[in-house]
Parts: sequence; C-alpha cells; structure tokens
Amino acid sequence: MRIKSEWELLNSIKDLITKKGLPSPSCLIESIGDDCAVFQLTKNKSGLITTDISIESVHFKRKFSGFEDIGFKAMMGNISDISAMGGKPNFAFISIGIPDDMTGKDVLSVYDGLLEAANTAGARISGGDTSKSQKLVINIALYGETLKNNLIRRKGAQTGDTVYVTGTLGDSKAGLEILRSGNIQNIRHFPGLIQKHKRPTARFAAVPGIIKKFKPTSMIDISDGLLSDLRHICESSKAGFILNESRIPVSNEIRQYSSVQKKSYYEFAETSGEEYELLFTSGRSSDTPVIINKDISVTPIGKITNNGFFVIRNKKKIKIPITGFDHFKKKV
Amino acid sequence: MRIKSEWELLNSIKDLITKKGLPSPSCLIESIGDDCAVFQLTKNKSGLITTDISIESVHFKRKFSGFEDIGFKAMMGNISDISAMGGKPNFAFISIGIPDDMTGKDVLSVYDGLLEAANTAGARISGGDTSKSQKLVINIALYGETLKNNLIRRKGAQTGDTVYVTGTLGDSKAGLEILRSGNIQNIRHFPGLIQKHKRPTARFAAVPGIIKKFKPTSMIDISDGLLSDLRHICESSKAGFILNESRIPVSNEIRQYSSVQKKSYYEFAETSGEEYELLFTSGRSSDTPVIINKDISVTPIGKITNNGFFVIRNKKKIKIPITGFDHFKKKV
Repeated sequence: MRIKSEWELLNSIKDLITKKGLPSPSCLIESIGDDCAVFQLTKNKSGLITTDISIESVHFKRKFSGFEDIGFKAMMGNISDISAMGGKPNFAFISIGIPDDMTGKDVLSVYDGLLEAANTAGARISGGDTSKSQKLVINIALYGETLKNNLIRRKGAQTGDTVYVTGTLGDSKAGLEILRSGNIQNIRHFPGLIQKHKRPTARFAAVPGIIKKFKPTSMIDISDGLLSDLRHICESSKAGFILNESRIPVSNEIRQYSSVQKKSYYEFAETSGEEYELLFTSGRSSDTPVIINKDISVTPIGKITNNGFFVIRNKKKIKIPITGFDHFKKKV
Repeated sequence: MRIKSEWELLNSIKDLITKKGLPSPSCLIESIGDDCAVFQLTKNKSGLITTDISIESVHFKRKFSGFEDIGFKAMMGNISDISAMGGKPNFAFISIGIPDDMTGKDVLSVYDGLLEAANTAGARISGGDTSKSQKLVINIALYGETLKNNLIRRKGAQTGDTVYVTGTLGDSKAGLEILRSGNIQNIRHFPGLIQKHKRPTARFAAVPGIIKKFKPTSMIDISDGLLSDLRHICESSKAGFILNESRIPVSNEIRQYSSVQKKSYYEFAETSGEEYELLFTSGRSSDTPVIINKDISVTPIGKITNNGFFVIRNKKKIKIPITGFDHFKKKV
C-alpha cells in the first residue's frame, strides 16, 4: 500500500502500538496524541518528553537558511511543544546526521543555533549522537517538567470557551513563499516575514502569564496551521469551533505583502505552519487582546462549540475544509 | 576544516556546549560522556535518557536486514545504553524519516521490530515524529529510571578491579563480513553470526543479577568494540587496563569461521561493535565465568591498572593501539 497521507500513516502506527505494544502504565498520563508524552514523577510534578526530526530538503533548505538558523529553528520547534503543555524545558538530546560536504565549522554553527535557542528557554544540551548521512538530519529529544496543576493538554476544551492565540499568524508561510520566489526586492522589503520563517521564537516566555491569567482548558502550539491545530484541540476535546476570521491577529508586513500579491492574508494566517504561536482555550472571555508581557499579547479569535468547524468570513458562517501540512502530500 | 574523526568532532562540540551553553544544574548527575544522561528525580531515584540515530547506508543496509530487523536492532541499541547504567527502560520516542519507495506496510514492519524489542525489555513507545526522507532514518530517544543505589557510571573503575563481560564477543562483525561477502554457503553455515549482526539482544535481563553479584564500579555496553569501550571506561575512571586475550569468551561459530578465513577470532572479539554485551568492572574477583541466569554468564577477562592499555597475547604483554568504529573514518 502506498502512503497516502501522514494522518493515515500515523493512525495505522497508533493502532499497531495499541495492538502489539505493552499496556500503558498508570504513571503515563499522556502518550501519543499530544505535543508531548507526560508521566508522573512525584505527587505534584510531571515529566514531559517530545521529539522532532528535521531533514534537509524536507524541513529546510540550505539555500534559504544558514546552519545557525537551522539549529535554532529545530530547537525552537521542540521548546514550543513543551511550552504548549505548560512545561519548562530542561534537557535536550541532539542526534545529527552530517553529509560529506559539511565542515567541522558548519557543524558547530548548527550547534551555535541550537545553543542560542536552548539558552533563551533555560534548556541544556545533555547528550546526543553523531553520524554520517547523505542529507543533514537533526533530531532533538527534549525533556521538560511541569507542576501537575500547570499541565495543559489538548483535550479539555469546553463548549463556550474562548479561543486565544499569541502573537500574529501567517508570517512563516509568507516568508517561505518569498524565499522560494527568489525575489530579492521582497526579501529586502519583508524582513519580518523572512525572520519568522527562518528563526521563529517559541512562546515559552508567555506560558506562566497565560496560566495565571487564563487557566487554559486546552493548549497546542501552531506547527501545522491554525485551522489544522484548532481541529486537533477540538478532536481531542470532542468539540467544534467557530472562528471569527476578522479577529485573527496579523502583522503589518503580511498585510502589505498580501496586498502586493493580491492574496488574502487570512489564507496565510489560517494555514501557516511552524508559527510556534500558542493556541489555547479558556473559560475566561475577553473581547480584546490581552497583554501577557511586554513582547507578547494574546488575542481572542473564536469560540468552542458542541461540534462542527466553522469560520465567520465576510459576516457569513462558512463550514470549512481543514488543510494542514502533510509530509506525504507535499514538500518544502 | 574537514571532519577528520568522530572523536575530534565530539570534542569540539563538547567544548562549544561548555563554553556557550548554560551551566549544568545540580540535578544533572551525568551529561555528555556516558551511555545516558542522568538526572535526579527523587531522593532515591534517577531518570536516564539516551538517544541514537540509525541511518540507511551508514548503520544498516536493506539488502542485509529486513525492516523488522532494522527496527529491532535500533531499539536494542538504546535499551543497551539504559542497561549499561543499571537502569530499566520505560518510554521510547521514535522519529522516522521515510523514503518514497517504502510502503505503509514496510513502515509498520519497522514498528513491528521496534515493538518486539521494546516489549521484551518492558519499554513502551509513547511518542514520536514522522517525515519524508531520502534515506530511511530512525531516531530513538529512550527514557528509563534507576534506583540511585543501582546507578552505574563509566567512571568508578578502581585499580585492581576485575574486568568482566557478558556473553561472547566478535559475532556481530563476523556476521557483517559474511553478509558483505555475499557468500551464500557461509550465510547458511553461520546463522548465529548473521543473527548477532541483524538482531542483537541487549543484556537488560542480566542487569539485576550483575548488580546483586558484583556491585560493579563501572559499566558500559559494547557498541564501539571491546578495546575501544574498555578505553572509554578507563579514560572516564583515569585508569588503565590489562586484558587477558585468551580469556575473551567467543562462540563456537566464530572459532569455525575464523579458522576457515585464517583469521584470529580475537581480532573480531576485540574490535566488533554493536555487540550490546555489557562490560563492567568489580572489586569482586573470579577466575572463572559466573552464571547470572539461565541464558547469560559473565567472564573475567582482565584487570584495571593505574595506567596504560595492555593485552596479554601469546603470553606476551603488548601495548596496544586502540581502534574502534568511527563514522567519519569508515562506513558500513
């Protein structure tokens, strides 16, 4: 059988693990199906582990990103997963597959990027593995911890909850589009879009404020795209959503870029993956953005409903097809 | 600068992490430089994390090993690292990069092998990541735990300690040599050598017995080769060794194969990597092999000394050059 979609493949892997793997012990609070696995350490503390692989030509291209950028972004993707569950990252484990054409200096540049990202979030590189490889491969396994009371899972969203998102959305996809086009003028005019694609910052600094102000009922990081990740929350929570498109926060640069390209910036905002913004639901409602700290605010963009996935677009309620990034359907 | 050796590259990565990374917190008992990172969980319990990457054409070839074998061996390599520190594996995280020519069934065969190995050692696959890739890539991150009193590190070997090893050595390298040669007759005649290369079993089942009978002062798993891994113990322990070559346990098959090939079976035994046997030192001496359980015995093969690396070969004490597997010097 040919692999038709990542979704289908993941489901068959999950089924196989359920069928043939050992039963889950009671200390394993969350397994496959959330941003991290969660296991009980002590009465009040949980351990979190996430892992992500970045492969040249699939997740990044050397002509678009420098080695430092590649390391930085790979680490931020993992930090984002720990943040999305309310945790703090502690220890990172780096496996790197190195092609023949990379020098020792190139490899150290990857580590410069990894360390820069890890340092800002308080994580330490504590082990790893090195190998030859045809293409550059970076796998990160990240261990973090959270107080049991601060643990936030995908499931937990309740009908009537407000949906919030940090920062602005869409820049990463627009940045990649510009890099792919090779349009030098656009590359110069839209540094924020390029930066968001090459060096996104996970919202670990917002987590304590979000927990304190909102007591989120569910949370996820936007790595597949807003609509796709909101669907993940709703599927885990057995709920639906109604998204108010005009409320989605977008940057000035993407407004300008979309205008030039004659595209809707909401299309970028709704489908851009690797944003590493946090998307969460809360029983506390707000009609306006809420400042979390000097750099980060969160914006209410919709509501959780009983079922169905809808967007209010141009004042019309539209049932929407969900599209997200799927490795087995398209490539970078 | 060109990458000359894995050893040199690892040292420059370690230096960079020390220079630019965050300082190590007191809860991090062991970091880079042992089989696993170790961190304190409670007063009596430590967490262990290891990660290993397996890349097609570097670590395995599809023409030698089936997909199940590839998954099985990758998991056993990680289980072996947890075992080498006296721990028990709990949760495994699988990143898999999948080439275009693999079907969904092929991917599930890899997971069959992963699950078979994990199940026997009591580990559960609890998360992971999937991606497209040019070559098949499997990264495993494995989390385990150990009681603080059972933790065994590389450092700790004392002058006068006896050096022990589980099982027999050399079969994996001989098995690979036979597979590479394509000699069908040898493939049929030496199934144990082929099996040890394709499906090595980590010695997790021997760990409780080894701890009880020997209270090891240091331990490592043989993944680079006996001489190379014994050097790792001695360098970490600031000690030397004297190895009695005639004591190294070898299988009947490798005796036969070496005889046919007119080679010394000790050469295989001293340099064969991916054996996943346990090598440890203990203040308790024995002149004869000790049975740990019905399948596994351990054999005394030498002594820890103040310094220098020596082998007694044909009744002569020889200072030996150390050679181990180095990804940046040769390939599968």
